[in-house]
Order: sequence, then C-alpha cells, then structure tokens
Amino acid sequence: MKIANDLYLRASLGEKIERYPVWLMRQAGRILPEYRAVRASVSGFKELAETPELAAEVTVQPVDLLGVDAAIIFSDILVVPDAMGLPYQMIEKKGPWFENTIRDEADLKILDQNIDVEDRLSYVLQALSITKKELNGRVPLIGFAGAPWTILCYMVEGSGSKTFSETRKLLYTKPKLAHELLQRITDVTIAYLRAQLKHGADALQLFDSWAGILGHKQYQEFGMQYIQQVVNAIDGPFTVFSKGAYSALPALMDLSCTTIGLDWNMSIEQARSLAGERKTLQGNLDPCVLYGSEASIERETLELLNTFKSQRHIVNLGHGVYPDIKPEHVKAFIKTVKNYEI
Amino acid sequence: MKIANDLYLRASLGEKIERYPVWLMRQAGRILPEYRAVRASVSGFKELAETPELAAEVTVQPVDLLGVDAAIIFSDILVVPDAMGLPYQMIEKKGPWFENTIRDEADLKILDQNIDVEDRLSYVLQALSITKKELNGRVPLIGFAGAPWTILCYMVEGSGSKTFSETRKLLYTKPKLAHELLQRITDVTIAYLRAQLKHGADALQLFDSWAGILGHKQYQEFGMQYIQQVVNAIDGPFTVFSKGAYSALPALMDLSCTTIGLDWNMSIEQARSLAGERKTLQGNLDPCVLYGSEASIERETLELLNTFKSQRHIVNLGHGVYPDIKPEHVKAFIKTVKNYEI
Repeated sequence: MKIANDLYLRASLGEKIERYPVWLMRQAGRILPEYRAVRASVSGFKELAETPELAAEVTVQPVDLLGVDAAIIFSDILVVPDAMGLPYQMIEKKGPWFENTIRDEADLKILDQNIDVEDRLSYVLQALSITKKELNGRVPLIGFAGAPWTILCYMVEGSGSKTFSETRKLLYTKPKLAHELLQRITDVTIAYLRAQLKHGADALQLFDSWAGILGHKQYQEFGMQYIQQVVNAIDGPFTVFSKGAYSALPALMDLSCTTIGLDWNMSIEQARSLAGERKTLQGNLDPCVLYGSEASIERETLELLNTFKSQRHIVNLGHGVYPDIKPEHVKAFIKTVKNYEI
Repeated sequence: MKIANDLYLRASLGEKIERYPVWLMRQAGRILPEYRAVRASVSGFKELAETPELAAEVTVQPVDLLGVDAAIIFSDILVVPDAMGLPYQMIEKKGPWFENTIRDEADLKILDQNIDVEDRLSYVLQALSITKKELNGRVPLIGFAGAPWTILCYMVEGSGSKTFSETRKLLYTKPKLAHELLQRITDVTIAYLRAQLKHGADALQLFDSWAGILGHKQYQEFGMQYIQQVVNAIDGPFTVFSKGAYSALPALMDLSCTTIGLDWNMSIEQARSLAGERKTLQGNLDPCVLYGSEASIERETLELLNTFKSQRHIVNLGHGVYPDIKPEHVKAFIKTVKNYEI
C-alpha cells in the first residue's frame, strides 16, 4: 500500500524531503486522555498490550489527535523475555517485575528454546496488522524491540534498577552465561523483528535503554556485538537508539542501519560530524522542554532545528514523552516542526 | 601535623610520587562487617552520621582494615539541605526522603537564611576533628559536599529519581527560582567546605551525582556555573566528580581545582588528552570488577594502571563501592595498586 505521508521513510533512507518528519517516543499510551479512557477499561498495562484491537486503537490515537508523521505500535520491549519463558508483570507506579531471573547456568532450564515467535507474540503481530489496516496508508507504522543488552538487564535483575549491578556482576563472574543468554535473546529478537515487518511494520527501532551503564570496552563486547547481528539481519528503515552510549557513537555510525537515535544529552553537531551523510539522526529535544510555555517550546524547538545541517533528520524527543506532559504542549512542538522551512 | 603517607596529597598537587595512591568512594559505611557492627548499635543511618564519635570510628576503619591511602569522612551530601531547613530521612532500602520540597517561590519561606553552618553542621565538623586526631597523621582526611545541582535535585524532587523530571521541569518553567536556590546552596556549600578545612579536612571533594541527566547547555548554566563559584572559593587539594558529565569534560579541565574524578564509563586516555598535566585524574575502575575473582580483579586493575601516562593519578573506583562486595576483593584491588611500579 502506498503511504500518503512517507516523510519518515524518506528521511530514514536519505531521500529528499519537503520538511522534517516528527513523532514522539511513547506517544501511544502515556499522555492522551483518550488513551487513559481505553486503559481504564482493562485490568492493567498487560491486558491492554495483549488485546490486539485495543493496542491498535491506542497506537492510532496520536496520528489522529496529535498529527505525528509516524505511528509506533503500543507494546513493550519485555514481550521478548516473556516469549522466552520468563513472564513479567507491570506493577503500577513501580514498573516491570519478573518472578524468575537468570543468574546461574542452572536457571537456563527455565527458558524455552526454539520457540515459535509468530505464535507466542501473535498478539503483537495481530495488533500490527489491525493498526496497518486502520492507518489506511496515512503514515508509516514503526515496530520495535529492546536491544539484547537491555533485555539481558531485565532477565538478570528482574526489575528496573539504577545500577543494574547484578547484571554487570554477571559480565565479570559468568561472561559465558551472559554471552549464551545474549545470543538467545538476539536470535529471538531477529525472528520477532522479521515477523513484525511481515505483519505490517514499515520500519523498526531497537531500544538500548541501558547502554549508558557500561564502559566502552564492555559495551562493545556485550552490547554492540549483538546489535550488529540484529542490524545485519534486517533490511529497510531501522533506527538504533542506544541511550547514553556516548563513547559508542563512532561505532554506531558504522552499523548498517539507516538511523541513529540520540538522547537529549547528545550533541547533534557532534553526531553529524561522526555520521556525515551516512546516517539519519533522530531526536533529540529534552523531554522537559515540553513542561515550559508554548512560546518557550517553540523557541527551544527552533533552536534544535537550526542546528540541522542536513535533510537526514527525524525530529523526536531525546527520551520517551513524560506522562504528565499536556497534549497541547506536544502539539506546539509538532506544529513548530511542521512549519519549519528546510 | 605532618602526614606520614601523603601520597594522595602529592598526587593531587602534581608532585612526585613513588606509587599511585588508592582509596574508594563509600569505603566508610558500606562493606565492612566492623562497620555493620557499629551501624547495628544505633537506630539508623542518620543517628550514626550525627554522632561524631561513631562517624569518626567508621571513617577510620578502612584505613586500619583495608590500608587505603586516604580517609573520607562518613557523612552524606544531604546534610546541606538539612542545615538549610529541609530535613531528610534515610529510609532503609529506599534511600533519602524529604517531607517538604521546593517547587514554587512560596516554598522558599520554608528555608532558613543566613544560617550558621558551624553550628548547624557541628556534628560533621566534630567528627572531622575526632577523626583527624584518631588518624594521628597516618593518611590525609577528605571532606566533601554535594555539588549545587545535585543538591537542588533532591530539594525539588524530595527523593531519588531516575529522571529527576520535577527538577528539570523547574529549569524550564521557573529558571529564576532554580538560580535563586542554586545560589543559596552554593553559598552554604562554600561556608561548609571552608569549615571542614578548618576542622581537620586535608582535602575536599565535590560530588555531582546527577550531572549526567542534563544536556550540555543546561549543565553549563545550572551546574558548572555554581561548581566554578565553589572551586574558586577553595584552596588546596580539591576534586570535582561530575558523574556522567561527558560533554562537560573540557570545561571541567579548565576549573581551578586540582583533581577531576572520572566515572567508570569515561576514558582515561581521553580525559588525559583534555587535561594534559593541568589536572590529577581520579578513578575509574568499574565497581563491578570487584565482583570477579581476585585474579580477574588484578588483571582489570593492571589494565587500568597501564593506561596511565602521567603521575597525576589517584586510583579509585568509578562509583561508590557496592554494598555486597567482599572486603577481600577490595584488598586485592588495593594490593595490586600498591605493588604497581610507576
């Protein structure tokens, strides 16, 4: 199906664009009252994510209500460990929690092997198919997964953490186990991303939320090596977002993906000088800018746009939009980008 | 009083040393069974920190038991907001918690002004004097404070946070209030650090634990500007540790302090090339290395030491030592540094 507004795809591929495309990480499922109404009709986050019709509904909402240039499927990166046999719960105001964790070779027996991703994650794939139909070619649909290192963090730690020291401990005490797990996660992730493309995703994004807690050498060994495997297995528009991975930026620019996501602490100029015209850069307005007045949102957004020296940009925040941001403020951000002349 | 082992001071000032000095952030009050025995005799962290004899006792323990080349006073950066009229509690397994926070101009009235730091923080100053006496000139004694930005984070947020979005929101919505608070914190911090020098501290360290959550421009405006005021007001060995402040590294090297602390994700080579011989670098072994075997601790420590091209180094971890690290493993780290020939 021809996509009417394909700015996101063209910017990803380095083709000519009339204006910069814009969307927000976490645009589905956080800020809209219309989302909260759907959310209130179910028992919790997981039921919503596992009910394809509802997941599709909240995925399409920001396209209708905010006018973003891309939709991203409402889901969670933790569906992958869940599919591998390590189920999670999403605890209100606390975040994800796993009853079982993998900290020892003996724990590997908990995990299922040779799983059929299309079966176990059929709810996400169905949500993609329904969304694709409901979008009816208006904007591209983005699928996603967590990067293997970030998924390992949750499988070992069992919850969020400031330091993920249990996981980092494993890298020193049981590096073989860490690599075994990372490889299993990588294989499932590749199958999952391919299935997403088959079921309607036009583009993909890999989220390495905890990239920033590893030193350079360890991120090469336990992070980048597996990201590279994933990237090499996938064609088409593909964004790698390694949050906080400053020292890995040069290596990220050498990946075969189309797009690199930048967090709000990274410098657009520095990233562009590393990337040249090889990569599209996505980001990176500080999400806290959206707490300011509409005038200051416009000013800060223009300041960001004025740093762009290339057409290879997709405008986004440098982190997921925070839950207490007013939709009107998001609209001021989007309007500023749409009115900006390249 | 002449200090017998003054390696830490000489390395700070760029004087000749026979071997690299070594100590650990959080060496007092986390890992030693002898500390836990003292801790069990009181109601909680705060009582211990506010009882000068006991604070001094746990400060000296790592000098006796681990053989570190410096002592750091057992205290907390949050004594400063406490002294300003914003008391905190330290909640077991949760961290600090403030009943009141400053989020509005009207909240400023909660704070006391023109406070006498020597009175309000006399318990820390007494602990320093007692420690100084008990050390009896064996090794230098380090005093410390939080950097103004990090203290602001707690005063606005009221607890730890992954994103400190309430505080970052303030920077966009009420920048004047943020600056007013930062200036008040800075003034108290300068008075407090000077008092520490007067009461026995031989050197000082400023901890900017949350430097890494601000983008470059905001860290200049709300972080570095106030660090510079503090640094300019203090003479002698002084370390600034801005965790995660990658993009501020060049500006940090221009400060008039003697030493820059590096977290475990920072590159010694890169920091040295920015600093030249103007600064002593402190750090930066990944604290998780100490989870490994003694052989691997020795190997990783040697790998770090081999990257040093200058005498201006103080060896430390790149973060506070984690609570579940075995003292024997810390000793293996210290022994490796002490046996290393410059």
